Amino acid sequence: MDGMLPNTYEGQNCSIARALELVGERWTLLILREAFLGVRRFDRFQSRLGIARNVLRDRLGRLVEEGVLERRQYQERPARYEYRLTEKGRDLWPTVMALAHYGDRYYAPEGPPRIFTHRACGGELDDRRRCTRCGADVGLREVEIAAGPGAIAADEIIPA
Amino acid sequence: MDGMLPNTYEGQNCSIARALELVGERWTLLILREAFLGVRRFDRFQSRLGIARNVLRDRLGRLVEEGVLERRQYQERPARYEYRLTEKGRDLWPTVMALAHYGDRYYAPEGPPRIFTHRACGGELDDRRRCTRCGADVGLREVEIAAGPGAIAADEIIPA
Repeated sequence: MDGMLPNTYEGQNCSIARALELVGERWTLLILREAFLGVRRFDRFQSRLGIARNVLRDRLGRLVEEGVLERRQYQERPARYEYRLTEKGRDLWPTVMALAHYGDRYYAPEGPPRIFTHRACGGELDDRRRCTRCGADVGLREVEIAAGPGAIAADEIIPA
Repeated sequence: MDGMLPNTYEGQNCSIARALELVGERWTLLILREAFLGVRRFDRFQSRLGIARNVLRDRLGRLVEEGVLERRQYQERPARYEYRLTEKGRDLWPTVMALAHYGDRYYAPEGPPRIFTHRACGGELDDRRRCTRCGADVGLREVEIAAGPGAIAADEIIPA
């Protein structure tokens, strides 16, 4: 397990270091990726990620504590909850997109598993999240995510 | 220590997951942050990060293996080496900037420790790495990094 980094790290007063305290754990970023793809329920996260339930519970709890995800009851009997991105969570979109873009460039020999496009015109997004067709700055809510040439069945995208 | 993630993760065929295999270890991103700030030498990385020498050696080795950093001899007797970002390394700039931007927004109560500006006109960069003054798309080589209001002495920036 990766625990806390030593104190020197704490003392670094660096925005990057602090942001990494939050998302620097790989499962955490993959959980967020799923949330951006539309996943909200524990069992869904669990089966898509193949992550141990206790680890998932721990990571989701941490993200709720940090205000990145919000836990909402969606059913009364039995009580069931879902996890939704807050504004602070949605603000991680540029980080997730930057990583996706990098991965697509260097680690996707069969092409990108997912294509991010501007819903309004269908243009793909560049590495500044700008539409390569119409030039608009594309916000998260205007993004359409579709399977790309490198997709496999497990990459299913949850309809919004 | 965090080791490899389980096989399910490997099977995910996701650009984000693959990119995280590379940079998802927190020290690795902090090493890259230092490289972007101009650090090149082992002892410099070591003292600025307060990282154990064997861990640093291991992480630098991995980054060289992956082609993110290049190891170059800069002195003959005794043989000394420095680590420089390759093109593949410099392409991580958007990810590092996205994390810095996020940290500045949510984890910098005393203001950002570093300010990223467009060298040509002094405008600050927005979250699309665009100059808020002149509107230019700013590339890594046109970025000026200076101490911000939240800086402490340890945040020293190496002159280019």
